[in-house]
Amino acid sequence: MLEELKKTVYEANMRLKNEGLVVLTWGNASAFDAESGLVVIKPSGVDYATLSPGDMVVVDLEGNVVEGRYRPSSDTPTHVAVYRAFKGVGGVVHTHSPEATAWAQACREIPCYGTTHADCFHGAVPLARFLTEEEIAADYEGNTGKAIVERFAGFDPLERPGVLVSGHGPFTWGKTAMKAVDNAVSLEEIAKMARLTEELRAHVPGREVPAYVSEKHFLRKHGPGAYYGQA
Amino acid sequence: MLEELKKTVYEANMRLKNEGLVVLTWGNASAFDAESGLVVIKPSGVDYATLSPGDMVVVDLEGNVVEGRYRPSSDTPTHVAVYRAFKGVGGVVHTHSPEATAWAQACREIPCYGTTHADCFHGAVPLARFLTEEEIAADYEGNTGKAIVERFAGFDPLERPGVLVSGHGPFTWGKTAMKAVDNAVSLEEIAKMARLTEELRAHVPGREVPAYVSEKHFLRKHGPGAYYGQA
Amino acid sequence: MLEELKKTVYEANMRLKNEGLVVLTWGNASAFDAESGLVVIKPSGVDYATLSPGDMVVVDLEGNVVEGRYRPSSDTPTHVAVYRAFKGVGGVVHTHSPEATAWAQACREIPCYGTTHADCFHGAVPLARFLTEEEIAADYEGNTGKAIVERFAGFDPLERPGVLVSGHGPFTWGKTAMKAVDNAVSLEEIAKMARLTEELRAHVPGREVPAYVSEKHFLRKHGPGAYYGQA
Amino acid sequence: MLEELKKTVYEANMRLKNEGLVVLTWGNASAFDAESGLVVIKPSGVDYATLSPGDMVVVDLEGNVVEGRYRPSSDTPTHVAVYRAFKGVGGVVHTHSPEATAWAQACREIPCYGTTHADCFHGAVPLARFLTEEEIAADYEGNTGKAIVERFAGFDPLERPGVLVSGHGPFTWGKTAMKAVDNAVSLEEIAKMARLTEELRAHVPGREVPAYVSEKHFLRKHGPGAYYGQA
Repeated sequence: MLEELKKTVYEANMRLKNEGLVVLTWGNASAFDAESGLVVIKPSGVDYATLSPGDMVVVDLEGNVVEGRYRPSSDTPTHVAVYRAFKGVGGVVHTHSPEATAWAQACREIPCYGTTHADCFHGAVPLARFLTEEEIAADYEGNTGKAIVERFAGFDPLERPGVLVSGHGPFTWGKTAMKAVDNAVSLEEIAKMARLTEELRAHVPGREVPAYVSEKHFLRKHGPGAYYGQA
Repeated sequence: MLEELKKTVYEANMRLKNEGLVVLTWGNASAFDAESGLVVIKPSGVDYATLSPGDMVVVDLEGNVVEGRYRPSSDTPTHVAVYRAFKGVGGVVHTHSPEATAWAQACREIPCYGTTHADCFHGAVPLARFLTEEEIAADYEGNTGKAIVERFAGFDPLERPGVLVSGHGPFTWGKTAMKAVDNAVSLEEIAKMARLTEELRAHVPGREVPAYVSEKHFLRKHGPGAYYGQA
Repeated sequence: MLEELKKTVYEANMRLKNEGLVVLTWGNASAFDAESGLVVIKPSGVDYATLSPGDMVVVDLEGNVVEGRYRPSSDTPTHVAVYRAFKGVGGVVHTHSPEATAWAQACREIPCYGTTHADCFHGAVPLARFLTEEEIAADYEGNTGKAIVERFAGFDPLERPGVLVSGHGPFTWGKTAMKAVDNAVSLEEIAKMARLTEELRAHVPGREVPAYVSEKHFLRKHGPGAYYGQA
Repeated sequence: MLEELKKTVYEANMRLKNEGLVVLTWGNASAFDAESGLVVIKPSGVDYATLSPGDMVVVDLEGNVVEGRYRPSSDTPTHVAVYRAFKGVGGVVHTHSPEATAWAQACREIPCYGTTHADCFHGAVPLARFLTEEEIAADYEGNTGKAIVERFAGFDPLERPGVLVSGHGPFTWGKTAMKAVDNAVSLEEIAKMARLTEELRAHVPGREVPAYVSEKHFLRKHGPGAYYGQA
């Protein structure tokens, strides 16, 4: 079932590896099939060198396995929590890419220091809080999804297509799995540029780009007035 | 039309990707044909994997499309502003390469800390100002070109073949599109070396290389007394 | 003898090179054969381009050569000291990978700043002390092994599969040679992320991730309750 | 003439590019033929993609061209000054590799912070002074060679196989051209590790590794008691 989507999810996972965002098996990509309400996701801890499209696992929106010979990614409950809450999201990606993870470990949102950031994120990259000890004991990965959703109260998730989980790392998303990978690539580059910018300013944070500059860049690429790319 | 130049511009754009200066589709190269007064430029937001020479777009010096099935780069008004103002420039490149972009986001010129810099830039790498909110609303990309030209009052643009736009990133240029790519490669390396130099000096900027050293290096490679390379 | 294990040790050494952990010939991997009590290790200072499985050297647990046309790695006495002391260890790796080596040169343990670290190491990455001048004169590499073992008093070496030797660099280990390589890759990435985390916090160390978060991540992957990967 | 050596020098130059030490055409390697007293060196400013062994230029120890259709590297007078002064040196390399160049631009010697450094350099990596304005006007590249030789008064150049030229970048050397390339690779890695070490110590320099540790490592690989590598 969902053979075409399995191929896409396989390719999205391989691209995470080929773009240099994933070390060993530290990452996973999934896609949501709106028609069937099912999710296709990478199996847990399988070597990329042996992975094939048929290894992808199909789960429902509660994370129950519907088809597949492997156990799904251990982060599956986080993925499905995002799909349940964020309408229009068709792909979710999780990595431990080093620059984004460093901001997550430093428990800092990434300020908008320039137009590269504004091209992809409308405002700072949000930071989700640490879970409590009780939340971790009860349902670690599911509650990670809840903390992400909680942080996005009042936000349009497609205008801020990613989050840093405190002490952990980034999750990104998009209309498709490939767009979620694009956003993982962008987030890693934005995170690196922001760190270098602070270094050049002698570690004085807090001087974002003027809002009218970042607004212009976001709106060049997004929304009704966008004029970047082909019609 | 301009089939040979389209091939060159295609190759210049692919080199930006292969040299690691461009992530996703964040960059563009163009060339100016002095005979016809026309510019060949990359189309906007097309994936590098599918790009071909025939996809390049021909525009006039006001940025109007003369030939091409795609919309030209959204930065086209900046490119043509550079060609209109800087005599002898035959190629322009824009990237978001991370080291140069970090200096642009930090709103700092790059001081000349050594001979690698002096081999390519005669003096500091200039910084163009932020546009005003009115300038952005009226003609963002065209006014970016104007701010670049304004910053170069009194400079020979071929002696300083690039600029950092505040809060945005680098533009470079040269006598040809390939030379503009060379200068984009050089600028990224110069930006990185300057950051590392400041880090090793405990972030005390302001100690440039003696001017007689940098002058010598610039003049080894440029002008009537140059003796680097083959006749 | 031990032809199959020689092939594995060869492949583990080549992977160190291909993963970018080894420059020139600065690294070595070995494996322990529990049945015969013998160790297979890379020869000293042989170029990776010409290395073959048959070049691997077989030594006993005192480091005496049992078979092989080459001299074994000069670090052999350290490897065998680890095998003698740490039950269950089947592979040992030594590199000078730059991020882990920088922590070793700074004489600092790596604090647990996030879940990437906790997935691999249970607690900080330990630091072994400098040897005394007498220890170096008497048996440099053997005493390096002793200092590592001394530092692990009270630790389960499979829960902390690596160490930083003061002023020198990392050693990692695991149940197999390939797992020891995985741990060398993980350690380098953890070391880099920890440095970036401190940089983003303006060099204020000492704020580790909450223990209940790191415990959860370690136990997702290790021990009786682990649920990462395939059964 | 010297066809075999031309091939070696060609391969040494290509390796500089393939090891990532050279951007564009910013580097050169040469070799000295003791029998004829001649030097083979890369031509100036020729693209690596089109370079071939037959393009190498033969010069005498004063830098005069003996054979070759191209102009030799503009740094030729520095290379020959090194061969004239340092007995036993058979290969010289110059790059603008970024980590070593940053130390040169910061006008700092590289302190010995660990055994990776001690394996290659006996003591700090020396720094040659800036030339005076008169020296630059008279014979820039020749006087650069003189400043290097002046800095090595009392040193054995084969125990410190490289130097940082203030405000410029590194030169390395060795018994052969390939060994000089090895030393360029080592110096870049040592420079990076030293910078990261200072960063982790919050930029407090001056705490080198104990001398008895670095002595041991240098003497494991060099001199009559060396036991690293094959007999």
